[in-house]
Amino acid sequence: MFEHACRLRVRYAETDRMGYVYYGVYAQYFEVARVEALRALGISYREMEDGGVMLPVHDLSLKYHKPALYDDELTIIARISTLPTVRIRFTYEVRNGRDVLLTEGETTLVFVDKVTGRPCRAPQDLLDRMSPYFS
Amino acid sequence: MFEHACRLRVRYAETDRMGYVYYGVYAQYFEVARVEALRALGISYREMEDGGVMLPVHDLSLKYHKPALYDDELTIIARISTLPTVRIRFTYEVRNGRDVLLTEGETTLVFVDKVTGRPCRAPQDLLDRMSPYFS
Amino acid sequence: MFEHACRLRVRYAETDRMGYVYYGVYAQYFEVARVEALRALGISYREMEDGGVMLPVHDLSLKYHKPALYDDELTIIARISTLPTVRIRFTYEVRNGRDVLLTEGETTLVFVDKVTGRPCRAPQDLLDRMSPYFS
Amino acid sequence: MFEHACRLRVRYAETDRMGYVYYGVYAQYFEVARVEALRALGISYREMEDGGVMLPVHDLSLKYHKPALYDDELTIIARISTLPTVRIRFTYEVRNGRDVLLTEGETTLVFVDKVTGRPCRAPQDLLDRMSPYFS
Repeated sequence: MFEHACRLRVRYAETDRMGYVYYGVYAQYFEVARVEALRALGISYREMEDGGVMLPVHDLSLKYHKPALYDDELTIIARISTLPTVRIRFTYEVRNGRDVLLTEGETTLVFVDKVTGRPCRAPQDLLDRMSPYFS
Repeated sequence: MFEHACRLRVRYAETDRMGYVYYGVYAQYFEVARVEALRALGISYREMEDGGVMLPVHDLSLKYHKPALYDDELTIIARISTLPTVRIRFTYEVRNGRDVLLTEGETTLVFVDKVTGRPCRAPQDLLDRMSPYFS
Repeated sequence: MFEHACRLRVRYAETDRMGYVYYGVYAQYFEVARVEALRALGISYREMEDGGVMLPVHDLSLKYHKPALYDDELTIIARISTLPTVRIRFTYEVRNGRDVLLTEGETTLVFVDKVTGRPCRAPQDLLDRMSPYFS
Repeated sequence: MFEHACRLRVRYAETDRMGYVYYGVYAQYFEVARVEALRALGISYREMEDGGVMLPVHDLSLKYHKPALYDDELTIIARISTLPTVRIRFTYEVRNGRDVLLTEGETTLVFVDKVTGRPCRAPQDLLDRMSPYFS
């Protein structure tokens, strides 16, 4: 298993008139968490995409336990539990500054060859960097 | 079952550098679809909230089949399959102008009393307006 | 002068914890208004961009007189006062359902050739369609 | 004069199909920069708002010199040039990792008493913390 935690602070823009973080904003938080998880492994998502492999999201699920609030400093934990194939699966936890679990989620993303538009195997470099965590 | 379709056009702001609608934006599309579904029943979500009943989202799931693109005119279909209790469940379909299914999703929302902060039963007026569709 | 009005309804996602439409969201409203203004002239911004001419924003200014609120049905008026050259200037007014002026703004956009990345003259078709309004 | 710099990384969500940061997103970046500028002075915007003083934006202006791109690590510099009265004026610069100036902007915000809804003087604590920079 590979796990990485990153922190971000809730923006005013991300709140709604209930005073909560809008439920669609967590998709952005998950994006930040998985990009930072890859970066911690030495992988730049931007470079991978510029190199011809895109990673569109195939599915998303989210459970909202408690609201995140304006200016909260959140910890977003991203986990990869199985070595990627043509897909990569992340699970996420969002916790506030008092370590209360606010939100849980999952995404599956598919490696897609930009030229053919077809699913493809995860880049070898990514597999090489991840495999030590899955032996 | 109650079903309502609404249309909206993809904004430039909603696209990402892949040229697709960003995966988190569908949460907004679903919000528009369920508010318009309620409005078609004669229910104003704003008035319900001003009247003391909030409806935060409890869970969300999404499957992305094909990307929505800039300036696409989308049809968002919202369905309610069971009469609400303390919860209301919507399923959604997003289709483009050629009636291709792009995205499917579901949300569960919980009726919450603003004063107590506790879950509560769906407002009677809402149940009265919905019940003809579930007999 | 050319003028076009479009309507849109404030989404929950667009409000903030003050209960107002977040101040950055008006950029999206202006985008919708100018794209619809062009469409009313028979010009598809998407086709123009696919045809090789982009229209990035050069400057934006906004005055916030009164807040727009959740579920308000807004009218966004976009005006073009001078025939475009390498630039096109829009002014905007945002009014609520009781015709109260909420926000005023301006944008200048620059026609850019996608291949060279350099500013270019407005497409002839656009000039032909606009010129009747500026004689 | 008081000046504070903060850094943030461009999210995929913030890009558009041109591959640029969407022009309305800078309003969020400016929000982050001014909240962090206040925090550097020992002032929590959240606490100020919870204490009864809101700070809605009165006007915004922006000049877009060069696009910010996905995954760029941006520096946002916020400056306050005059001691606030009932208003506070910020100017901003957005620079990329190679210190290229991408965007410049300004905002004026108004202190508003939450109870009366009327403009009010800046809180004394804020003035006390800022005044050393304006003597």
